[in-house]
Amino acid sequence: MNKAGNGNFFEDFSLGQTLVHGTPRTVSEADQSLYIALTGARHILHSARPVAHAMGYPDRPLDDLLAFHLAFGKTVNDISLNAVANLGYADVRFLRPVFPGDTLKAESTVIGLRQNSNGESGIVWVRSTAVNQNDEEVMTWIRWVMVHKRDRARPAPQPIVPEPPAYVTLERLPIPACLDAHGFETQLTGGPWLWEDYALGERIDHPAGMTLDETDHTLATRLYQNNARLHFDAALMAGSQFGRRLVYGGHVISVCRALSFEGLENVLAIAAINGGAHANPTLAGDTLYAFTQVKASWELPGRNDIGALRLRLVGLRNLTPGELAEPIVETEGKRKYHPNVVLDLDYTVLMPRRCTP
Amino acid sequence: MNKAGNGNFFEDFSLGQTLVHGTPRTVSEADQSLYIALTGARHILHSARPVAHAMGYPDRPLDDLLAFHLAFGKTVNDISLNAVANLGYADVRFLRPVFPGDTLKAESTVIGLRQNSNGESGIVWVRSTAVNQNDEEVMTWIRWVMVHKRDRARPAPQPIVPEPPAYVTLERLPIPACLDAHGFETQLTGGPWLWEDYALGERIDHPAGMTLDETDHTLATRLYQNNARLHFDAALMAGSQFGRRLVYGGHVISVCRALSFEGLENVLAIAAINGGAHANPTLAGDTLYAFTQVKASWELPGRNDIGALRLRLVGLRNLTPGELAEPIVETEGKRKYHPNVVLDLDYTVLMPRRCTP
Amino acid sequence: MNKAGNGNFFEDFSLGQTLVHGTPRTVSEADQSLYIALTGARHILHSARPVAHAMGYPDRPLDDLLAFHLAFGKTVNDISLNAVANLGYADVRFLRPVFPGDTLKAESTVIGLRQNSNGESGIVWVRSTAVNQNDEEVMTWIRWVMVHKRDRARPAPQPIVPEPPAYVTLERLPIPACLDAHGFETQLTGGPWLWEDYALGERIDHPAGMTLDETDHTLATRLYQNNARLHFDAALMAGSQFGRRLVYGGHVISVCRALSFEGLENVLAIAAINGGAHANPTLAGDTLYAFTQVKASWELPGRNDIGALRLRLVGLRNLTPGELAEPIVETEGKRKYHPNVVLDLDYTVLMPRRCTP
Repeated sequence: MNKAGNGNFFEDFSLGQTLVHGTPRTVSEADQSLYIALTGARHILHSARPVAHAMGYPDRPLDDLLAFHLAFGKTVNDISLNAVANLGYADVRFLRPVFPGDTLKAESTVIGLRQNSNGESGIVWVRSTAVNQNDEEVMTWIRWVMVHKRDRARPAPQPIVPEPPAYVTLERLPIPACLDAHGFETQLTGGPWLWEDYALGERIDHPAGMTLDETDHTLATRLYQNNARLHFDAALMAGSQFGRRLVYGGHVISVCRALSFEGLENVLAIAAINGGAHANPTLAGDTLYAFTQVKASWELPGRNDIGALRLRLVGLRNLTPGELAEPIVETEGKRKYHPNVVLDLDYTVLMPRRCTP
Repeated sequence: MNKAGNGNFFEDFSLGQTLVHGTPRTVSEADQSLYIALTGARHILHSARPVAHAMGYPDRPLDDLLAFHLAFGKTVNDISLNAVANLGYADVRFLRPVFPGDTLKAESTVIGLRQNSNGESGIVWVRSTAVNQNDEEVMTWIRWVMVHKRDRARPAPQPIVPEPPAYVTLERLPIPACLDAHGFETQLTGGPWLWEDYALGERIDHPAGMTLDETDHTLATRLYQNNARLHFDAALMAGSQFGRRLVYGGHVISVCRALSFEGLENVLAIAAINGGAHANPTLAGDTLYAFTQVKASWELPGRNDIGALRLRLVGLRNLTPGELAEPIVETEGKRKYHPNVVLDLDYTVLMPRRCTP
Repeated sequence: MNKAGNGNFFEDFSLGQTLVHGTPRTVSEADQSLYIALTGARHILHSARPVAHAMGYPDRPLDDLLAFHLAFGKTVNDISLNAVANLGYADVRFLRPVFPGDTLKAESTVIGLRQNSNGESGIVWVRSTAVNQNDEEVMTWIRWVMVHKRDRARPAPQPIVPEPPAYVTLERLPIPACLDAHGFETQLTGGPWLWEDYALGERIDHPAGMTLDETDHTLATRLYQNNARLHFDAALMAGSQFGRRLVYGGHVISVCRALSFEGLENVLAIAAINGGAHANPTLAGDTLYAFTQVKASWELPGRNDIGALRLRLVGLRNLTPGELAEPIVETEGKRKYHPNVVLDLDYTVLMPRRCTP
């Protein structure tokens, strides 16, 4: 028997099962610098330690998405190595900032299972949670993945289909305990707009584009110790429908979010990711663009320094936002994503308010 | 109105105006490691902490060019996002070493303005200064940029044309207060030559070459949070005269300087950049080579441990130094740069002297 | 005379000569993060500081191969800049872990010389040793290189041919003094197999593949400040038999070892590299795969927490392990490496044992 495993197949999962993911990872300022180099990220709390200090943080926290990708990367070997498709994620909540020196580890619990009618695969739902070295929860999320069966003959489990929340409601939105934005000045970011300035339904077309090369996405994905093979093995992927390595969806999110800085300069932190669709594949050579729509604007109870914005971040490949009115188009009576849309992300951020004394 | 800005246009600048640039950046050892990985830099003070300690520094300082690119990167969004061309820089002085843990922020003051006769653009001169978290000036420089007008109809400002110094004179040359090179040994670098060994007019052909790939320069430029779009957006650049992404000139400087290590092993620090021309564009796929000419050699008042050398660093693409006698050639009566010259940099460095007891 | 050196030629070496290599290098957590990003490394001691602490280390040590490449990189400028070929290495012993903050420097002593019969080159054997900032030896190795002569007319030295040990015997195998694996749990890595589980002759086919791009290997090799020109100068290499830049053999080792994680998850550290052959060149675009064979399994005197495994790591390009029964094939009566074999490495690792109370 070959000692090199091949991950879990559909019949290896059982309801309530807990998987402790291997290879905890100590993070450092290096990860933040690499993240900046890989994405061009400029959000202020992750860029400047004195600003983080002034806003109540003990150190500059890692970019929320960097922390998420690191935590998510831990789960791949056990959950999605045999994925037919990553179907979705929801209820991603950023419970606590991650700082240089922290060590992240992750575990997942199976919360749903449903075999596909063809008997060749099934859908697995897991709730994953990452903790730091003090066993404090830093992130939690639900994802669901279609996974191959190893043995078609194995009986189907009793189907249990969870219903992830459509979005993280205000009541469940985590706000970093330390965050105090009373002293915030827009000069820190160069962007003049604060929470009050964003109107429901408003759309922001981010002007910059970023072309992805093979080394960009493979460096990023390796940094996260995410070992999903379709990102790395060009020989394997030459035989796939894509013909080449697929860019990790998390890198697409990160690049689009970095592009979204222009027009959303004063976002301080991501509080939640409500859900996301990777509408079409992203491949090296693609140039990404992005636009944002404001879905909701929430006051936060007891806070006059920050508010929350629920945003829709749409990522495009090889098409500028000005060229696309609507990401979903009707073709032959069917509504589906425009072929140049690669990302449709629903997430919630925190932004300083105008202080009204 | 789209909240995503598009930078400043010529008519947005006014004489004496101060622009505080956003996104201060905390630097770390990670930036130095990344810089080494991106350029192959080997200069000793930035490589080995014990050597830096022995020479009076509290820590190993960041490579001077790395610090410069980080500081410069801050200014792009406000000064040159709508640049037709980056015309020049001068009087770049390295006032104070930058150490891991420092936070750099930058501001610029408009010191000159002149509209072009076509009424479509104008030249803006700025004096930019970067400070650390203690508000100590670490770098200062002048640059001038040709910037588009948003509205051709806007009246031209009174023309004010500053005259940047041709070079940083000995009197204005900053020497790090802590630097003491009395204990320097050439064994530390493997290069036998010290300040006294370099003769006026001497030329050093650096033997190594470095081929640039797209990810090299985009990683570097993103690390510096420099968001000039022509380095990142291949779709945009496909329609330009270059047909592809342009390599950030700062990366060209850094690679050529790293190549210049062989023959200039004992350079300790850059004190000033007197000026530079990016004679031709550099594109991914180009292989860079470099040679150096000694323009001046200065004793430093009251110092017997170090001297200064004013150097001309010429960067070539796809041509070895041995194949080029002169970077400027006469064609049809006109003197212009040889098409393979990409950089002509005039800068001043500090190097240990032979200690004569 | 051009001050830029061109390294040492065969006649520059003499028996017993010591070469102190320039550019000591302070290492940091950034180097470890970059190494992870460049290779996808997941071995536990280098990934998670709390795990390193729990196993007796004062901090998480750098990946052994990262430390080796950094130390090796120091020697290139003096030993192998004019190499016709890197012929071999042996007796590589990892004497002491390298931690973030350490500064590595290296020196080499010439232990053998033999001019080739053609009079145009010769073989140089050196013993190289790297020390940390406390002058403690952290690594030592023998390598031999074929080097060009500068002047064919120079007389040949008396031939002295050392005989490096075929492998590092148990008696000479360095075990980190601090390492205590009694508390090890396989949950930390996700791999269930411990020292007792590996049988002599057993083969493990590692399932993952990794495609190399130009920026991957040039970033890695520059990070190590290894300035061998054939890795960087595409214009130079266009005229070589390879037609393009050659991937540094050390990067090939590192990628193959990272691939070998699946099936060898619980390797804690490399104690020795016994020898290695870079059987065929690796070029950008190649997809690497690997398999491992168990050559020996040793109990360690006085230790019931760890044992040693001597392993053969075979690296393949563009061929999966399942497609290759034997790395050495007989063609027209000659036994030679299969053309898709790029690496045949013999090394010895430490792995936790099942604790039997």
